[in-house]
Amino acid sequence: MVFDSDDTEAVGTAKVQIAMRYDDKNKQFAILVIQLSNVSALLLQQDQKVSIRVAVLPCSDSSSCLFRTRPLDAADSLVYNEVFWASISHPALRHKTLRVDVCTVDKSHLEECLGGAQISLAEICRSGEKSTRWYNLLSYKYQQKQNRK
Amino acid sequence: MVFDSDDTEAVGTAKVQIAMRYDDKNKQFAILVIQLSNVSALLLQQDQKVSIRVAVLPCSDSSSCLFRTRPLDAADSLVYNEVFWASISHPALRHKTLRVDVCTVDKSHLEECLGGAQISLAEICRSGEKSTRWYNLLSYKYQQKQNRK
Repeated sequence: MVFDSDDTEAVGTAKVQIAMRYDDKNKQFAILVIQLSNVSALLLQQDQKVSIRVAVLPCSDSSSCLFRTRPLDAADSLVYNEVFWASISHPALRHKTLRVDVCTVDKSHLEECLGGAQISLAEICRSGEKSTRWYNLLSYKYQQKQNRK
Repeated sequence: MVFDSDDTEAVGTAKVQIAMRYDDKNKQFAILVIQLSNVSALLLQQDQKVSIRVAVLPCSDSSSCLFRTRPLDAADSLVYNEVFWASISHPALRHKTLRVDVCTVDKSHLEECLGGAQISLAEICRSGEKSTRWYNLLSYKYQQKQNRK
């Protein structure tokens, strides 16, 4: 596996591209996990599979809040294009935070998360318009190092 | 101390209001910590002081990345209106994540953080326009409970 670091714009930070849309008519929140870039910044080992875990937090007891993409073979850019739907009212959604984690799964199905982003949904709009954005991922190894200082 | 929970819109989630602006001329990033609402959702004890810790992550060795507001006596709404400046180029800033933590400080000056938000700066604009938003705070006690499940 070769990590391509030609893209100087992306060096130093892994990013995830997410689109979100609230469907007011059906009271459904759609989360589209599009792709990852610069995955090597999360200190990935070879021969791993990478999936993205998405959680709408805090979890409601009444509906699903945790979703996972299929695992893909590690590479510096990974395209998922998977959509997940959470049933939730718009006022409730505005109290939630979307937690997005990039995780590896080993052969014994153990999941280890390498980094993540948190997206506050306090100002999510109900118009049905899709918001598509790139989010920087903070490496957990980096955070652990910082906490030890 | 009485926690006022009349604001039904805010019940269930503590929120922080942050304004950000990038000054391209002076290569400075301004972070204005405006206020907290619904602090009681973070399970605050009485007689504590509350401050907000702001970090521009990952930290650069060359400039300050960690800032703290003054501590205020705990109440359900707290107005800080403190501004912090980080010296950073715009391309570097776009790889950063702003971590905002709400922390208490006890009499022996020990800091305990109760909750936080992460704000990706991947799409921060360089125009000098101020972006002012409310962000939901995720409670760390809630997250620890979830991790144990």
